[in-house]
Amino acid sequence: MNSLGRIFRISIFGESHGPGVGVVIDGCPAGIPLVVDDFLPDIARRKPGARGTTPRQEADLPIIQSGVFQQHTTGSPITIWFENQNIRSADYEKQRDVPRPGHADFVARVKYGGYEDYRGGGHFSGRLTLPLVAAGVIAKKILQSGDSPVDIQARILEIGGETDLDKGLEKAIAAKDSIGGIVECTATGLPIGLGEPFFDSVESLLAHAVFSIPAVKGIEFGAGFRAARMFGSEHNDALIDTLGKTATNHAGGVVGGITNGNPLIFRVVVKPTSSTPKTQHTLNLRTGEIEPFQVKGRHDLCIALRVPVVLEAVTAIVLADLMLIAQQRPTRYPGV
Amino acid sequence: MNSLGRIFRISIFGESHGPGVGVVIDGCPAGIPLVVDDFLPDIARRKPGARGTTPRQEADLPIIQSGVFQQHTTGSPITIWFENQNIRSADYEKQRDVPRPGHADFVARVKYGGYEDYRGGGHFSGRLTLPLVAAGVIAKKILQSGDSPVDIQARILEIGGETDLDKGLEKAIAAKDSIGGIVECTATGLPIGLGEPFFDSVESLLAHAVFSIPAVKGIEFGAGFRAARMFGSEHNDALIDTLGKTATNHAGGVVGGITNGNPLIFRVVVKPTSSTPKTQHTLNLRTGEIEPFQVKGRHDLCIALRVPVVLEAVTAIVLADLMLIAQQRPTRYPGV
Amino acid sequence: MNSLGRIFRISIFGESHGPGVGVVIDGCPAGIPLVVDDFLPDIARRKPGARGTTPRQEADLPIIQSGVFQQHTTGSPITIWFENQNIRSADYEKQRDVPRPGHADFVARVKYGGYEDYRGGGHFSGRLTLPLVAAGVIAKKILQSGDSPVDIQARILEIGGETDLDKGLEKAIAAKDSIGGIVECTATGLPIGLGEPFFDSVESLLAHAVFSIPAVKGIEFGAGFRAARMFGSEHNDALIDTLGKTATNHAGGVVGGITNGNPLIFRVVVKPTSSTPKTQHTLNLRTGEIEPFQVKGRHDLCIALRVPVVLEAVTAIVLADLMLIAQQRPTRYPGV
Amino acid sequence: MNSLGRIFRISIFGESHGPGVGVVIDGCPAGIPLVVDDFLPDIARRKPGARGTTPRQEADLPIIQSGVFQQHTTGSPITIWFENQNIRSADYEKQRDVPRPGHADFVARVKYGGYEDYRGGGHFSGRLTLPLVAAGVIAKKILQSGDSPVDIQARILEIGGETDLDKGLEKAIAAKDSIGGIVECTATGLPIGLGEPFFDSVESLLAHAVFSIPAVKGIEFGAGFRAARMFGSEHNDALIDTLGKTATNHAGGVVGGITNGNPLIFRVVVKPTSSTPKTQHTLNLRTGEIEPFQVKGRHDLCIALRVPVVLEAVTAIVLADLMLIAQQRPTRYPGV
Repeated sequence: MNSLGRIFRISIFGESHGPGVGVVIDGCPAGIPLVVDDFLPDIARRKPGARGTTPRQEADLPIIQSGVFQQHTTGSPITIWFENQNIRSADYEKQRDVPRPGHADFVARVKYGGYEDYRGGGHFSGRLTLPLVAAGVIAKKILQSGDSPVDIQARILEIGGETDLDKGLEKAIAAKDSIGGIVECTATGLPIGLGEPFFDSVESLLAHAVFSIPAVKGIEFGAGFRAARMFGSEHNDALIDTLGKTATNHAGGVVGGITNGNPLIFRVVVKPTSSTPKTQHTLNLRTGEIEPFQVKGRHDLCIALRVPVVLEAVTAIVLADLMLIAQQRPTRYPGV
Repeated sequence: MNSLGRIFRISIFGESHGPGVGVVIDGCPAGIPLVVDDFLPDIARRKPGARGTTPRQEADLPIIQSGVFQQHTTGSPITIWFENQNIRSADYEKQRDVPRPGHADFVARVKYGGYEDYRGGGHFSGRLTLPLVAAGVIAKKILQSGDSPVDIQARILEIGGETDLDKGLEKAIAAKDSIGGIVECTATGLPIGLGEPFFDSVESLLAHAVFSIPAVKGIEFGAGFRAARMFGSEHNDALIDTLGKTATNHAGGVVGGITNGNPLIFRVVVKPTSSTPKTQHTLNLRTGEIEPFQVKGRHDLCIALRVPVVLEAVTAIVLADLMLIAQQRPTRYPGV
Repeated sequence: MNSLGRIFRISIFGESHGPGVGVVIDGCPAGIPLVVDDFLPDIARRKPGARGTTPRQEADLPIIQSGVFQQHTTGSPITIWFENQNIRSADYEKQRDVPRPGHADFVARVKYGGYEDYRGGGHFSGRLTLPLVAAGVIAKKILQSGDSPVDIQARILEIGGETDLDKGLEKAIAAKDSIGGIVECTATGLPIGLGEPFFDSVESLLAHAVFSIPAVKGIEFGAGFRAARMFGSEHNDALIDTLGKTATNHAGGVVGGITNGNPLIFRVVVKPTSSTPKTQHTLNLRTGEIEPFQVKGRHDLCIALRVPVVLEAVTAIVLADLMLIAQQRPTRYPGV
Repeated sequence: MNSLGRIFRISIFGESHGPGVGVVIDGCPAGIPLVVDDFLPDIARRKPGARGTTPRQEADLPIIQSGVFQQHTTGSPITIWFENQNIRSADYEKQRDVPRPGHADFVARVKYGGYEDYRGGGHFSGRLTLPLVAAGVIAKKILQSGDSPVDIQARILEIGGETDLDKGLEKAIAAKDSIGGIVECTATGLPIGLGEPFFDSVESLLAHAVFSIPAVKGIEFGAGFRAARMFGSEHNDALIDTLGKTATNHAGGVVGGITNGNPLIFRVVVKPTSSTPKTQHTLNLRTGEIEPFQVKGRHDLCIALRVPVVLEAVTAIVLADLMLIAQQRPTRYPGV
């Protein structure tokens, strides 16, 4: 489904080379100040243009189609719409019979019986992360409006195996190839008790949302995969005060699937951009022959560079939903 | 929520030291042969008793309370109930004010205002994986009933950093500490096209389900975190036939969030058992003092050893749901 | 699906002549006092035994299988189980090929490919209203725990066309036939603002729940079908104070799908019991012949008599869910 | 929530006097031919302009924003957008403190803390039925694409108590008041077996959807409220052939909540338009005084006249969803 969330619920739509992309947000509380300018900083962070990102330029101006009146949310569904403007579809139509390696071209063709919009990935395009970022802006507002403001920050840990990002990019440029990376996200200020057992643990919901970001292939919380080589006495975080603070944070702020009041920390791996400048091979579905393949269109050398703001957005969307759900439950510590 | 799935939908309930644990399965097709004996092999695989697992012994006999008639599913909700028998609650009641490190004791107490069933982890207990395994048995039957039977196999890759599992256990025994591990799951025979963009990718749904297994702290598909250090030309899997077969399988059988007809492969990290034999420290919530803590009760030295059958179960549950959803869509490749 | 509700979510299971019937309740807040005795008064109201109801007698003793600890709800799923005891399945097995008129026998057989549990209506049986009543008891507790306790009362308006119920029953007994009736439900003490546009209006959610009660064939709110013959100036309820009180209540307490602070009032029609003592005709599916049919088993002459407590239950379930959802929104009137 | 459906799922958004109204449709199968012209006939049927309807004129031209490519559905979300053009908001802004009788003005103000878009009913406006009609057009296409095409027809039975509609309108004009009516909807060609026990009966789902249509205050299936005064032997529909045909159709084509192969028939009552030309009284929230009230703006004398196409739309939406769900189950009659 193209919807996510239980109370704060988003639905995205659109294609890379259709009229545009957008999002409907249901369940946003009324009374939150909201104007077009609020979206611009995060949209700018997602924009290409920096070194290593695609030269495709879009105005990416959000149009508020519903749910906002007199510069405040109304409680009714909020729709944000982005027109596609800078489209070169011909690039894609030529290669219809030659599925691009690493892309969804082939599986989409099979799944939808050949009716999929194949131009630029269609509905599978990374362009769909634009409305995600817009929804994230609203979710962040919800998270910052409570007693204890929640702050979410994502940053790149490494690209191409290098923590010095310039060095990573040099590697890619030298190899004339695309590269992947690792992005870490941290949320602070969260109350104890978010997450709904058994299946809606914080980890379950975040992982669900995070894997919707194209190119993400793994996620780990706290010590993550390192935990496989730790002893229990080493991994366990000792409680040191009645507010839940622990001496270490190997759990990444989540125990039993529930936030424990320490910073929520997780990392995701972003695979190298599928559209590499390097010549590859793929099957021509018409001829049945394997043939050399050269990417057309404009692409990112390292898509991980654009992931942080998207990762923050989906994290905010999940946490805002959990915050609204949690309002129904006693969250105060009842005393010892 | 305690439910998972859209068409094939399971709801679990129960506590470690209450009357029992169980599962309701809604949306299972009618006409599937089902008797109590069908559950026993997977239940036996989950049972403790092997070296490195808890000595707590339960009969774990499934009682079918609804949805089965004349040894076939009826199309109505199937309820499987397991009585708890071998309960030593006193072990837990004593330590009410001393939250066990690594466990949900503290967060559950805050979240539920002190009303949680704290005995043995209550609803957070690993015992809840028993009804999951039962639901998995039914899901596997659905997956095996189609034209192309789907086979799911999970296995331990390493414990305590050792691929030789005996060696890993020796390490734990020598250190008098618990250890973690990595478990890999593979599903073969899947059709092309499972997964529902944008948010219900195969990766999203599997990760969602997998993080409900207690102690899982990370998941990666195909090359996973290694992808961060690969070039695009290296990571991309080249299509080599019209059935979707690729030369390599770095994607782990999922592209664009959709199965591509190659084996689905993913790995999870299982943290070391929180209940380690080693003395730890924690906060006494009554006295406000940090004090030494020694685990009571019966526990697994390496909980990862019992994870494979549970991992297979949640994988089967997710895939069965996606298979039933996919029946509504054209899945035949329309010809080139 | 066999589930209802978004936050306070119930799932029912079981069959008339299987091991029993039950309900799992997810999302119930922690800390609500709950013991077996709390269920008994409403269960007694649903019980047959009165004049005009079936002589089948069941102990109907609720067994709490999960979610309650030290006589309070824990926040985890609550499971209530009722064993079937007084079963005479042979009555039904004989008539397998002769679908009972007015019952689901034929459609169930087609829908489930012949695998349905056909004994006594199986999962379609009115016996499934027993766990509904149990869930209703818990919902009523939630509704009574707020600042403004909500009271729900259902009563029979007429049976067999008579407001004097004895007279209605005499009619049925004289005609040796079953009869229907009309039941009215009123909820007072509701806050203004329950109901979630556009599709989850109070009317939508209540109607959804109410039509799950077997034999209900219609529902109307406030003036209901009489509204078709009223003028607008007559039907409109004039606001008379800032708390929302209106001079009349033709809307039945719901405007724009949202509670307006006046009593919620609706009526449902209950068709005559399908199992009438009178000889009927139906098709023998084996012979293809139409043949006379005489009901076997024990049945209610007027099932409407047992509906009020069930109607209260589903009303309470829906309203409790809406109350929990509404806690996320500003519900105070902001001043004029 | 502003979404409806499980597989074929629609989400509506927009306000009467904002930029426009629209709908996102998720889960529509790929490959359905779809162009703008397909929407025009049903949109025309909903349009005002006929005698007794509002003189507000809108172009109501559907703009397809996503999900359609080369004149076919792609399997991705379909978004249909309608711009609002002929807006006279000043009419409404003046009366902010004077809630219109029969409208949601007051409850919306309380529910959303004064942040609601109050112009012309905002998100509560009947204008939201326009995207519903658009979604209905697509749902009808799904219903007509199967082996057995399903046909849905709604018609007005009476307005103002008159089956001669002109006579009903004369009555309203003479009284200078608005009037209500009764609309009947029939669906033929449905397979046996639609509807999902226990809570998703055909009646539950249809009633849920139907009560989202503004002004609907009651629904009844088949004999409906007349069933209260029938004997069981009279109300029961005798099965007369193995395809499920019954001699009578008092059940309205639904038994046990499941379609039985006979025509689905139900009726709804539509209250008189709240905006009557007659002078009414209401509370001035600012002054606290009750004062005379005269409707501003352009309105329908009898909103029931515009309901049939909307009723067909929501019926088609519900049935299309059930058809897609039913594809997962054996629906063939297994032989006797």
